[in-house]
Amino acid sequence: MARKASLSGFPEWLPQERAIEQHVLDTLRKTFELHGFGNIETRAVETVGHLLRKGEIDKEVYGLSRLAAEETAKSDPNALALHFDLTVPFARYVVENAGHLAFPFRRYQMQKVWRGERPQDGRFREFMQADIDVVGEGTLPFRYDVELALVIVEALSALPIGDFMLRVNNRKLAEGFYLGLGLEDPAGVLRSIDKLEKIGAEKVAELLRTELGATDAQAEAALALASIRTLDDSFVGQVRALGVSHPLLEEGLEELAEVVRTAVRRAPGKVIADLSIARGLDYYTGTVYETVLVGHESLGSICSGGRYESLASKGNKNYPGVGLSIGVTRLVSRMLAEASVTASRSVPSAVLVALANDEGWHDAQDVAAALRSRGICVEVAAAAEKFGKQIKFADRRGIPFVWFIGEDGSHEVKDIRSGEQSSADPASWMPPAQDLHVGIVSA
Amino acid sequence: MARKASLSGFPEWLPQERAIEQHVLDTLRKTFELHGFGNIETRAVETVGHLLRKGEIDKEVYGLSRLAAEETAKSDPNALALHFDLTVPFARYVVENAGHLAFPFRRYQMQKVWRGERPQDGRFREFMQADIDVVGEGTLPFRYDVELALVIVEALSALPIGDFMLRVNNRKLAEGFYLGLGLEDPAGVLRSIDKLEKIGAEKVAELLRTELGATDAQAEAALALASIRTLDDSFVGQVRALGVSHPLLEEGLEELAEVVRTAVRRAPGKVIADLSIARGLDYYTGTVYETVLVGHESLGSICSGGRYESLASKGNKNYPGVGLSIGVTRLVSRMLAEASVTASRSVPSAVLVALANDEGWHDAQDVAAALRSRGICVEVAAAAEKFGKQIKFADRRGIPFVWFIGEDGSHEVKDIRSGEQSSADPASWMPPAQDLHVGIVSA
Repeated sequence: MARKASLSGFPEWLPQERAIEQHVLDTLRKTFELHGFGNIETRAVETVGHLLRKGEIDKEVYGLSRLAAEETAKSDPNALALHFDLTVPFARYVVENAGHLAFPFRRYQMQKVWRGERPQDGRFREFMQADIDVVGEGTLPFRYDVELALVIVEALSALPIGDFMLRVNNRKLAEGFYLGLGLEDPAGVLRSIDKLEKIGAEKVAELLRTELGATDAQAEAALALASIRTLDDSFVGQVRALGVSHPLLEEGLEELAEVVRTAVRRAPGKVIADLSIARGLDYYTGTVYETVLVGHESLGSICSGGRYESLASKGNKNYPGVGLSIGVTRLVSRMLAEASVTASRSVPSAVLVALANDEGWHDAQDVAAALRSRGICVEVAAAAEKFGKQIKFADRRGIPFVWFIGEDGSHEVKDIRSGEQSSADPASWMPPAQDLHVGIVSA
Repeated sequence: MARKASLSGFPEWLPQERAIEQHVLDTLRKTFELHGFGNIETRAVETVGHLLRKGEIDKEVYGLSRLAAEETAKSDPNALALHFDLTVPFARYVVENAGHLAFPFRRYQMQKVWRGERPQDGRFREFMQADIDVVGEGTLPFRYDVELALVIVEALSALPIGDFMLRVNNRKLAEGFYLGLGLEDPAGVLRSIDKLEKIGAEKVAELLRTELGATDAQAEAALALASIRTLDDSFVGQVRALGVSHPLLEEGLEELAEVVRTAVRRAPGKVIADLSIARGLDYYTGTVYETVLVGHESLGSICSGGRYESLASKGNKNYPGVGLSIGVTRLVSRMLAEASVTASRSVPSAVLVALANDEGWHDAQDVAAALRSRGICVEVAAAAEKFGKQIKFADRRGIPFVWFIGEDGSHEVKDIRSGEQSSADPASWMPPAQDLHVGIVSA
């Protein structure tokens, strides 16, 4: 992001920057599909009534109205507005199409979302999210909580983003612990703990005492729980050592231990039990996930999610789910800002077929067609300018090869980086593998 | 589109329908990139001032306002609104980023656009467009008009949409002819001719006489021109036989003849000179294109565009361009409505690894990882239910293969369509090529 967006909060990329974003999206898609997740897209708009059914976030929503229409009252629940995430539209989609879906339903979804909030580093008004979820009808085995952690580790590991850490906690564990402690508003405690990174332990303790009626000992215990972080299941012993017991706590300990034990075996060093993770939103009911880029902790979580016992419900049907959402724009904007990754050229073309004279255009197109049939991206010069000018045309775009057709029908191809030129057969020539497609190179 | 969209004009696809749309988008992307077009995306919103700078279409624009904000006057040119096509945002993008782009700049863009118009068959309020354009700085050789016709024929030929015909005309030809005839408002004549398919020749003649001051003979000649359709350059002789001459007409004849002659050689039978094509919008200045699906003419054009001498300008810089836009949603909705194309399964997975018992989950994940490393999409059963139930799970999704791990560590794979079961090695087994990915099958 060397350049400033012309509309604050609405980033746009240059072609070579977009190539990096495309690489990220292609890589995610590939990993998700390898794990059996199918793609869907939902419409960009929802009714205001559906978007705001959980309350709280109306400040951020962009309402829609036809410029030529009569004024619609913004409070009209049937008015349209842009979605602010992919979970709320997905919940509607599942209910509307339940009869046509096979449950547990695995889907990924990569679309832009909009939030009218104040833009700042890593926060945008329009941004791309990539979500995966598994949704059951009635029930959904806990094993999917484990599987999704592994899928997301595999997906993020395939990206050129450097080291990351998936931090996992469990709402049952935390809420059970607070209940076992005798705190009566576990959700309120969780919301206070969620502020830990922002305001520090002392202020959280004060909140717990003043707003949630905690004693000094209770506040201390809640903070002690939140300080536990282990790369294996040794957190279980550390929690037990705090001397609190509650059936919900037991359930949460068992679930989180299963996630971490599996990760130790299948994704070592990438998953940590972090008992400070709370996730502000209320609908999570079990596992919660956050992800930090190591060395970029200030960026916030680049991938978050969790288990919700009710993504949606209709009549007596309930749809539990577990899922994660990757903040693609946040990730890509950081990669661009740091120039940690670059694209090897600004166009797909590996070859420019030069023109010796204007009549040679058809022959040049024949060469291009022959090369394209083997998956090589090719442009043909539009005019028979001096060869130096045609080579410069390629050079400015980073096109590595220029193809020349001699008057005698001979063919030569020049690597304009090395200057090396050799004869070539349009029916068989291939560029080196690393030049075939735009390369995404870590700095 | 067996199902009705829950919000009129905002279609959403089931996973197996989205697979068809993805196939269309992937195929277009591949063709465009093979021809050296790079991808960009622009933000979904523009300022109202930019969107309406050409006037006329304000009825269709969706304005945006934050639900929590003070009321913004809709007429405020700085207010935000959703783009209604990809050309207007692209024009802004080119001007804003001109210093970072290499001209002639080739790009493709595949994004949703929004229009608040009344939904009807083939017309939506939210729909996907796929655009390609080449834009020059100052000048742009005519040859790109020829090239773009060939690229689009190649792209559409690669789609499972059946026979189509690219209808090409040239604004200079038509306007020069009208000027040569002595008609003083060639743009007005063009707008009347544009109504030919809708209201018929008689009514167009009446419009020409009453609204454009044409004599009977002039109206007749204009209609005679619009009746010319040839698959080769014989239209030139037919136009000349009408006895009109004008320098602009000559220029247009020469340009259109070059497009058609090249098409005869490189895309035979796919391009027709059709002198009735007018394209309502005013900014085209030379070549104009429309595309009909043979047998689906009532659907309207599925791909249109043309040459514009000024896509954008800033100071003394002018950016001419030529491009086309494919109506992807219109195309896909017709494919779905006709069931002319189906997806072979509703999920990416080619294999389900079954569980004999819950402890086998890790072994099953090992098998899945081995298969995925060769690009095979795999799911692992979440619970060790009866094999019959696990096979049914695969069957409901169209997953063709179920993998079994014996207690002795042996491996067998069953094609659940044929019932055939044989031993298999996770390190080397491959499904038949047609089962590797979701197949898109023409009915």
